[in-house]
Amino acid sequence: MTLLYEGKAKQLYTTDNAEELRLVYKNDATAFNGGKHDVLHGKGELNNAISTLFFEVLEEEDVQTHFIKKISDTEQLVRPTRIIPLEVVVRNITAGSLARRLGWEEGKALSEPIVEWYYKDDALGDPLVNEDHIAALGVAKVEELEEMRMRALHVNNILVDLCWKANLLLVDFKLEFGLQDDGTLLLADEVSPDTCRFWDSETKEKMDKDLYRYGLGSLQAGYENILSRIGGVVYD
Amino acid sequence: MTLLYEGKAKQLYTTDNAEELRLVYKNDATAFNGGKHDVLHGKGELNNAISTLFFEVLEEEDVQTHFIKKISDTEQLVRPTRIIPLEVVVRNITAGSLARRLGWEEGKALSEPIVEWYYKDDALGDPLVNEDHIAALGVAKVEELEEMRMRALHVNNILVDLCWKANLLLVDFKLEFGLQDDGTLLLADEVSPDTCRFWDSETKEKMDKDLYRYGLGSLQAGYENILSRIGGVVYD
Ligand SMILES: Nc1ncnc2c1ncn2[C@@H]1O[C@H](COP(=O)(O)OP(=O)(O)OP(=O)(O)O)[C@@H](O)[C@H]1O
Ligand SMILES: Nc1ncnc2c1ncn2[C@@H]1O[C@H](COP(=O)(O)OP(=O)(O)OP(=O)(O)O)[C@@H](O)[C@H]1O
Ligand SMILES: [Mg+2]
Ligand SMILES: [Mg+2]
Repeated sequence: MTLLYEGKAKQLYTTDNAEELRLVYKNDATAFNGGKHDVLHGKGELNNAISTLFFEVLEEEDVQTHFIKKISDTEQLVRPTRIIPLEVVVRNITAGSLARRLGWEEGKALSEPIVEWYYKDDALGDPLVNEDHIAALGVAKVEELEEMRMRALHVNNILVDLCWKANLLLVDFKLEFGLQDDGTLLLADEVSPDTCRFWDSETKEKMDKDLYRYGLGSLQAGYENILSRIGGVVYD
Repeated sequence: MTLLYEGKAKQLYTTDNAEELRLVYKNDATAFNGGKHDVLHGKGELNNAISTLFFEVLEEEDVQTHFIKKISDTEQLVRPTRIIPLEVVVRNITAGSLARRLGWEEGKALSEPIVEWYYKDDALGDPLVNEDHIAALGVAKVEELEEMRMRALHVNNILVDLCWKANLLLVDFKLEFGLQDDGTLLLADEVSPDTCRFWDSETKEKMDKDLYRYGLGSLQAGYENILSRIGGVVYD
């Protein structure tokens, strides 16, 4: 089976079915646009388990996603898409680059979620862009942006609620969307502590990739904690 | 008369009339957020003359502005406003930070103008922001943003046309808007080669503050060239 794409955290393979790809979660951890890199035993398995759990909940809530099923500790079957090269970031609480951009301290709750677009281009450092930049780049239509924004906010509502029940704050997260051949927009890529910030609701302790980014503690311990918390939520 | 504000390029004084402020154009040239600074004899006079000319044309075209009249070589009377701390940038041709952000070469004509918002905050380096950031900052309402965007694009149409007749390309420019006590939105600040990029239509020679920013030649020679070109346009 052909390796279609090898990224920093995942591999994507064809299968003998043209409607399905095999997504493999690797143990690699990277930060600062590749400036920091380590192999962390168990990370792929944890991200696969957490991402699967989130995608199952989203599918149950009728969000159209690329997710088909988990097929091994580190692998999922997903639907092939043409990824729109935009990172859609939703923020509920100030952290990271938002705190730096606006000169705010981390941990301030936003009265409304903030949605941001970043142009997926490693060489440019994934710059923040607005709708006019996106039109000039020609990477998405106005209607697709509007649809992605609505979907991202819907996903936010679902996940904030789920996390809350798991005693976690969903601080912010990054989504990627892809188009199927018939134009259907699917939520793709992953939803995991590599791509979301999760804090303990009470202590505000960080449990996501910031543990690795800023050397705050064991990434695996944080991810295991998240998995056990969300795995324990009775979803209704 | 009280000095209300001293910026890098201008001073703002009260007058004995509460409806009028005196705006003084200084000879200071600065770039890279104050990292480069020089006093350039004649600059204030040139900017005052050019900005006056543009504001007169805009007023003639029913754009509501703060401009009342030129009162000396370096001074204007303007209406007092509460400045909205956003820089509204309109771009017709790639240059400067846009070229860097999107990884494009300078000088590419855009099929549609790009409008950008920058949060006016020197300590933060005037970061690019989107509508959600602006809502979180609480510096402008959605309707005000929509109004500023429409006005900025209207100003662009008028100035592109005027410049074209003067054999100049209007590459991009920055506007500031202010609110009067009754909520009326006025185009404020200045419209000059300090805040606009002007290139010769044929040779693409730069005639604006980039001359100073990148040490490409005499700023005053460029500004004089612009003034004589736009001063010579018969406006109909
Ligand atoms: N359903 C899908 N169809 C096609 N491509 C997908 C799908 N889901 C995810 N991808 C892409 O597969 C790649 C996953 O690899 P990984 O996340 O490791 O990449 P990365 O190192 O983060 O680099 P990138 O900046 O490309 O995301 C990403 O480029 C992602 O956009
Ligand atoms: N009609 C007006 N009413 C009130 N303030 C105004 C008006 N027109 C311009 N200003 C403000 O006057 C100041 C002009 O000074 P100058 O342009 O030199 O400032 P600056 O060094 O560029 O710093 P800033 O980042 O504040 O613009 C600016 O802060 C501008 O916003
Ligand atoms: Mg990725
Ligand atoms: Mg200024």
